[in-house]
Amino acid sequence: MQVSETAQPAPDRGASASVLLRADKENVALLTLHRPEARNALSDALIDALSRELDAIAADRSIRAVIVASAPSSCFSSGHDLKEISARRSDPDRGRAYFEDLLGRCAAMMQKIVRLPQPVIAAVESLATAAGCQLVASCDLAVAGEDARFCTPGVHIGLFCSTPMVALSRNVAPKHAMEMLLTGETIAAADALRMGLVNRVVPAGHAVDAARRLAAVIASKSAPVLAVGKRAFYEQIEMGLEDAYAHASRVMAENMLARDAEEGIGAFLEKRTPRWE
Amino acid sequence: MQVSETAQPAPDRGASASVLLRADKENVALLTLHRPEARNALSDALIDALSRELDAIAADRSIRAVIVASAPSSCFSSGHDLKEISARRSDPDRGRAYFEDLLGRCAAMMQKIVRLPQPVIAAVESLATAAGCQLVASCDLAVAGEDARFCTPGVHIGLFCSTPMVALSRNVAPKHAMEMLLTGETIAAADALRMGLVNRVVPAGHAVDAARRLAAVIASKSAPVLAVGKRAFYEQIEMGLEDAYAHASRVMAENMLARDAEEGIGAFLEKRTPRWE
Amino acid sequence: MQVSETAQPAPDRGASASVLLRADKENVALLTLHRPEARNALSDALIDALSRELDAIAADRSIRAVIVASAPSSCFSSGHDLKEISARRSDPDRGRAYFEDLLGRCAAMMQKIVRLPQPVIAAVESLATAAGCQLVASCDLAVAGEDARFCTPGVHIGLFCSTPMVALSRNVAPKHAMEMLLTGETIAAADALRMGLVNRVVPAGHAVDAARRLAAVIASKSAPVLAVGKRAFYEQIEMGLEDAYAHASRVMAENMLARDAEEGIGAFLEKRTPRWE
Repeated sequence: MQVSETAQPAPDRGASASVLLRADKENVALLTLHRPEARNALSDALIDALSRELDAIAADRSIRAVIVASAPSSCFSSGHDLKEISARRSDPDRGRAYFEDLLGRCAAMMQKIVRLPQPVIAAVESLATAAGCQLVASCDLAVAGEDARFCTPGVHIGLFCSTPMVALSRNVAPKHAMEMLLTGETIAAADALRMGLVNRVVPAGHAVDAARRLAAVIASKSAPVLAVGKRAFYEQIEMGLEDAYAHASRVMAENMLARDAEEGIGAFLEKRTPRWE
Repeated sequence: MQVSETAQPAPDRGASASVLLRADKENVALLTLHRPEARNALSDALIDALSRELDAIAADRSIRAVIVASAPSSCFSSGHDLKEISARRSDPDRGRAYFEDLLGRCAAMMQKIVRLPQPVIAAVESLATAAGCQLVASCDLAVAGEDARFCTPGVHIGLFCSTPMVALSRNVAPKHAMEMLLTGETIAAADALRMGLVNRVVPAGHAVDAARRLAAVIASKSAPVLAVGKRAFYEQIEMGLEDAYAHASRVMAENMLARDAEEGIGAFLEKRTPRWE
Repeated sequence: MQVSETAQPAPDRGASASVLLRADKENVALLTLHRPEARNALSDALIDALSRELDAIAADRSIRAVIVASAPSSCFSSGHDLKEISARRSDPDRGRAYFEDLLGRCAAMMQKIVRLPQPVIAAVESLATAAGCQLVASCDLAVAGEDARFCTPGVHIGLFCSTPMVALSRNVAPKHAMEMLLTGETIAAADALRMGLVNRVVPAGHAVDAARRLAAVIASKSAPVLAVGKRAFYEQIEMGLEDAYAHASRVMAENMLARDAEEGIGAFLEKRTPRWE
């Protein structure tokens, strides 16, 4: 558990952890992809560091919101590390076992974001490409600097962005997703806002600040209540209407009986500030 | 069945019915939430009155469209009635049975709107919050005055808007829904339009007028044909593409054989106005 | 297989084929609905001609993208041919068998577009109505001239646009789809862009040119890779998140092992232009 306010590699998680920095401040964990020399590509080590840090945060009750940002570079993240991938073509199986494992670990990491009890906000400057764009799409919320751009350009290199598409196509309309996927074209922050891929566009260089403001609002709420609601969101969205209502009604009845709802409703009726558990 | 042009409580449905007014005019039923002193909160009595009136309208062939509006107040509807909820904390089971029943009845009422044979249009002025926002999202169409606002602010009181989220997340992109749910923030009518939560924004105070214009267009169509189409819409949207086409093709072939399609197509080819059944 | 640059009916497919022109140029097939005297209505013959041509293109490795346009007329396509439909009311079964067969063939044709290995771009000028609007919605991408308009006006003639709704409701937000379906109203190209029904709006008369530019970008990519990605898109969109990731990960691991990914990634790392299979 990190409590320092200075970004640093997670201790005791191996040398590879230096590709990811974590700085906690006011109950918000800022995770910074830190491979600027490699356009913050999601190398094996970075995927694993993100996975471990997400696991640690899931169990860390001091953290109420998470921001995912990256070290200044031409890319927020350039996606998978093509040099790593290419090197495994010389494996006896031409890389099959490695590729399957890599994509499985990457998809698992993306789903850890979705399943994390705490809300996760992407703070995007510069270019989010391929799995970097998927990372943005996988977060609950996203803020972009006005110079941020987004693309799923796998078609340029003969490798369709199939796993990024899973997250992208759950954020934007199908024709928008298809245009990005089939042409590999780059869209501007303003387009991403219009399409639903990001929540807010702010002046260039201010994405983390804006994400901090959103995170502060979220961190002022009851963490267990947010966790219950976030989980129910992603559960019910996959159900038909009737099942979704049955599920959400059960969740909300339980929520009403929880300590923080009693405190929150009481505070509201008494016109005072609630004190969360 | 109401035929008067003056808003009045439904007769013979008990004293509680005065929380909901109904006025029928030119085959359109205007339902008005009428608890202005309580910000048009969805009390037990109001939920039940809405349910009963929707049942009555479902069986009323004189009604071809429904508008849901509310008495002038700071809120279109403030959602569930927190005073009623809080009072049940002293029940022997701390309110569990009551909460489960309340949420079940509320979700059933929202689904009656979706299943109603007639199209339903929300006409929103001022603030639609929590289950009030859910009510807007549950209608087939929505018109908002330019001062209307929308929020799902349960997180402010430790009670995540889990059931409102079911309807909201089926109207707007996931990141938009998540922002409203996690922060509790209020969005303006113009944002709601951009996100897909409302169809039209009109000058403040004119939402009912605009809803009447939409309702008049709808009321000029064949009511049985609208009923068949509305039902098929919500059925097919939950299916995969192939099943959806199989279902919609069956529905449309039946529709072609119906009296109003024969009349409508005949009238079109003969360049005359159709006379619906 | 067509290789001429001049639009012409497909040879050896019967007289009916003249309702559809095909012109191939630079690996892009331009299909032109050619019933201008009948507002490019989707007659039996035109639906069958489209189906056959799509089957032919699916097997034609020289074609890397498809554009669907139509002969200049008041309509891009006016949807089903109401005269043909009406004529079958005098069948012994009042047309039931014919209607069921017609709708089945039409839905199958629309799904051939979705399942076609090559991306399909609608190039829309003037009015796309009913099944004509469905045709646009069924394409992977769509470009519209600024005078283009869209509607699902079946309610005007007592015949709800139930099969068009399947495609429309998978492109735009539910309240937008419902407004078009319940009122039959016509929306402008700019609205269609905002709602997600089209990707781009261009000056009137330039939709085919703009579609050609998009098609040229697509045609410069690896055709087998696009085919794998397009297929996976429509498969995963119907799955829950976990299944979608499992599926997309398998697809992408296979893609990594394919010749064009090895070539594409190699070319990228060596900073040269890839040569696709």
